[in-house]
Amino acid sequence: MRISIDVELDYALSEPGPAILMLEAAGASGQELHRTSIDFGPVDRFARVPGEEGIGERIVLRAQDRITCRYSAQVSITRDCPDLDALAADEVDEMPGDALRYLLPSRYCQAERFTAFANRRFGELRGGRKVAAIRAWVEDRLDYVAGISTPDTTAADTFLQRQGVCRDYAHMMIALCRAAQIPARIASVYAPSVNPPDFHAVVEVYLQGGWHLVDPTGMARADEMALVAVGRDATDVAFMTTMSFAHMRRQSVQVRRDADAS
Amino acid sequence: MRISIDVELDYALSEPGPAILMLEAAGASGQELHRTSIDFGPVDRFARVPGEEGIGERIVLRAQDRITCRYSAQVSITRDCPDLDALAADEVDEMPGDALRYLLPSRYCQAERFTAFANRRFGELRGGRKVAAIRAWVEDRLDYVAGISTPDTTAADTFLQRQGVCRDYAHMMIALCRAAQIPARIASVYAPSVNPPDFHAVVEVYLQGGWHLVDPTGMARADEMALVAVGRDATDVAFMTTMSFAHMRRQSVQVRRDADAS
Amino acid sequence: MRISIDVELDYALSEPGPAILMLEAAGASGQELHRTSIDFGPVDRFARVPGEEGIGERIVLRAQDRITCRYSAQVSITRDCPDLDALAADEVDEMPGDALRYLLPSRYCQAERFTAFANRRFGELRGGRKVAAIRAWVEDRLDYVAGISTPDTTAADTFLQRQGVCRDYAHMMIALCRAAQIPARIASVYAPSVNPPDFHAVVEVYLQGGWHLVDPTGMARADEMALVAVGRDATDVAFMTTMSFAHMRRQSVQVRRDADAS
Amino acid sequence: MRISIDVELDYALSEPGPAILMLEAAGASGQELHRTSIDFGPVDRFARVPGEEGIGERIVLRAQDRITCRYSAQVSITRDCPDLDALAADEVDEMPGDALRYLLPSRYCQAERFTAFANRRFGELRGGRKVAAIRAWVEDRLDYVAGISTPDTTAADTFLQRQGVCRDYAHMMIALCRAAQIPARIASVYAPSVNPPDFHAVVEVYLQGGWHLVDPTGMARADEMALVAVGRDATDVAFMTTMSFAHMRRQSVQVRRDADAS
Repeated sequence: MRISIDVELDYALSEPGPAILMLEAAGASGQELHRTSIDFGPVDRFARVPGEEGIGERIVLRAQDRITCRYSAQVSITRDCPDLDALAADEVDEMPGDALRYLLPSRYCQAERFTAFANRRFGELRGGRKVAAIRAWVEDRLDYVAGISTPDTTAADTFLQRQGVCRDYAHMMIALCRAAQIPARIASVYAPSVNPPDFHAVVEVYLQGGWHLVDPTGMARADEMALVAVGRDATDVAFMTTMSFAHMRRQSVQVRRDADAS
Repeated sequence: MRISIDVELDYALSEPGPAILMLEAAGASGQELHRTSIDFGPVDRFARVPGEEGIGERIVLRAQDRITCRYSAQVSITRDCPDLDALAADEVDEMPGDALRYLLPSRYCQAERFTAFANRRFGELRGGRKVAAIRAWVEDRLDYVAGISTPDTTAADTFLQRQGVCRDYAHMMIALCRAAQIPARIASVYAPSVNPPDFHAVVEVYLQGGWHLVDPTGMARADEMALVAVGRDATDVAFMTTMSFAHMRRQSVQVRRDADAS
Repeated sequence: MRISIDVELDYALSEPGPAILMLEAAGASGQELHRTSIDFGPVDRFARVPGEEGIGERIVLRAQDRITCRYSAQVSITRDCPDLDALAADEVDEMPGDALRYLLPSRYCQAERFTAFANRRFGELRGGRKVAAIRAWVEDRLDYVAGISTPDTTAADTFLQRQGVCRDYAHMMIALCRAAQIPARIASVYAPSVNPPDFHAVVEVYLQGGWHLVDPTGMARADEMALVAVGRDATDVAFMTTMSFAHMRRQSVQVRRDADAS
Repeated sequence: MRISIDVELDYALSEPGPAILMLEAAGASGQELHRTSIDFGPVDRFARVPGEEGIGERIVLRAQDRITCRYSAQVSITRDCPDLDALAADEVDEMPGDALRYLLPSRYCQAERFTAFANRRFGELRGGRKVAAIRAWVEDRLDYVAGISTPDTTAADTFLQRQGVCRDYAHMMIALCRAAQIPARIASVYAPSVNPPDFHAVVEVYLQGGWHLVDPTGMARADEMALVAVGRDATDVAFMTTMSFAHMRRQSVQVRRDADAS
């Protein structure tokens, strides 16, 4: 599948300072970039450094009081949807270091606090079946409601409040997977089926020697996601990080499925 | 300086499961390993994977109800103490990716919440002078008291409670440095001057293109520390991480300065 | 039923200062005091003030480095167990002020965060049936495990961690009842069936114009509880509150059912 | 001094349900009500119950999807400003029960966590001088910034973030006073000098046998405040408490100093 992405950002900064942007589809396995362009408004200069796990890039801007950005790309998605039920979990002592580290708790995914619940609720299941059950449970138990959660909301908060947005769904699924000894990380993606159109956050789980994209909101499929970045939780994959308050003047994210060329 | 390290651990696990140990002096710049040995008690098997930033190794054990470990090493420390006052800060847009990521907040170092305080208190200072002032402020304002903080204690908690142990000192200094746009990470080390003898946590700050070890407790000097691991905060450098409750039966850490051979 | 209570406390204070004790069976409706005695060890002086809602008394001590207390009483319990299913809830606008205030969230019972869950899980039920369902749910979902929770543990924490002691059970039930617009408060009691013998915390709910004792742990019955104090949550009914750290040297709580005199 | 108060509220409720309003100047010592009127929009019915400590009244409404309220009053303030430096603190064991209870920590004023800081910073001072020093410290250390704090913000949060509104100033001062063994509670008031005009929150401290109003923001004086309600913290004195989300359509608070009649 081929998708087209168009993003426009316009933010006012309360103080001059650096900003980190992370919003380009990555050159990553399972997807091919066809064309890509990015333009920044009045910024003094910018640099690029690799994202977490070498996936995607962080763009570091030096800005005065305003950041504008136009990003446009066309991406072919070549990966398939994972068949979770067919995937086995790896033993912890057979995992590589860059899977093992995603077992550890993080700020928004306090996995160690979910252990008793995960054991009680999902303890009978194994591997991909357990992941599928966790994903379905998160989708069922949460209501997708904007404006309830804040940038401080953690998986523990969401577990109680039962409402949130994609980021909250992802954090809760990640916390439960890690509590069940399955490495899990957040992934920021673009997908045409996300409604309303926006940046989207999903989960990558490590099963049978590889990472697999799953969406606890049920809105997007792995074979239509353009991956941007991965990380421990929302901090690592924020589309914009500033050191002072950034006031949104305009933000638009458009993702559409292109007509088949064949 | 040459130091000798002897560690003994004996823990009972409430349930069989994996454990991650991270307690060997790393083969890292600024130190040389002379001899090293590690023996585990009744564990089914173990594996090694690299630690964060490729520094040190995580040892992954599969254990039944007990983990014992004896570790012994001799290490020469060849690094000097940093002269903080002479070191400049790097511009954020000139930092490599593996420095930039240590500007981001983390679970125990919620840097974004310290911004107003850091600006008010340390806003006039720059670079290494600012780091030195932060370090001195942390040492002065906190009392070293065992038993007040828990594994859940964050820099925000310690900022209020004004008491803690090396880990709490480190988290608070890291949060303040990141709030001041200076990359900072936790480092676990051995040092002969730590009293009572124990695993020790200090801070690495990124100044003038490199990482520099500083100890906010004032107990240890960089030229006598054997580095074990680095990371965002305590989660990344824990000497032992288990999935169920681990009851300490015995733990001993001995670090002594060897007589000069010359 | 008649019960006998014998308590011994011996605590060392880290600094001289006041302490508040609240551990005597109250002269309250549903119970009669037959004999009661209380003796304090080396305290400079003490005073009594009424407890919350005029139930029981707070004893305020001025102590040096040690507090010892021997309390002994015999109490007849004359109240019946409430038949929850038969009790209706009151309309909020028909409640007296001292019921209404127990709808408000408090430190350990953050009722407003439980609203979505309470509506989803218990929204179909009314009045005492709803209270009975909440009580049974709390008992079923939690495991009684000592040493997991701390004095900082809240109902929100317990909802996630699924483990705790009587105080945690009580806080969680209170939060759920308040979220369902049923006034609920904590009650400290003595009961012979508590195992291991200890101070015990249960819940009072306001139904059909009155307060009714229920125990979410399932350990004690209202017709065998001697009420000590009530309040918003654990802060109000702590058996001892000190301003500095109090080290327990000895604590013993014995409650036994007396042989029937008849 | 005589002041006139005019309030208009217009809120839309997301679901029908009860609401608690607390916004009338109280018939309390130190002030006299001259005229007062309150009208509610489309509410099914309402009732009044006494507020905390019998000060002021809670109005309980049963509403459908909308709450409107017009309140108007004229109040003479007869109390003087307290001369804090001249007031002594009471011994804890000589306080009445309704002062003692305001030593206890509460949800937004976690006094027990401020003990080490309060001792270090204010330990040398006594009584009203200590209260005056705490008040001045809070005013100096915080910046009055709207939009930073939320209904969840606690004194511990504000201590770190150094920014907030009147409610945050009050919580922080209360926590510090309680940590210093001086009873303190929140008071909601009207005052003509509050800018921008709004409901205002200040602190009452218990010194020398009585309660005294002080304003940590420095905006209002005790001799120009019309007291509405008191309580442990913001939960107890909220001008409106609803069980579902209330969307503000209009809110206006006008308080003006009347020309002297003499």
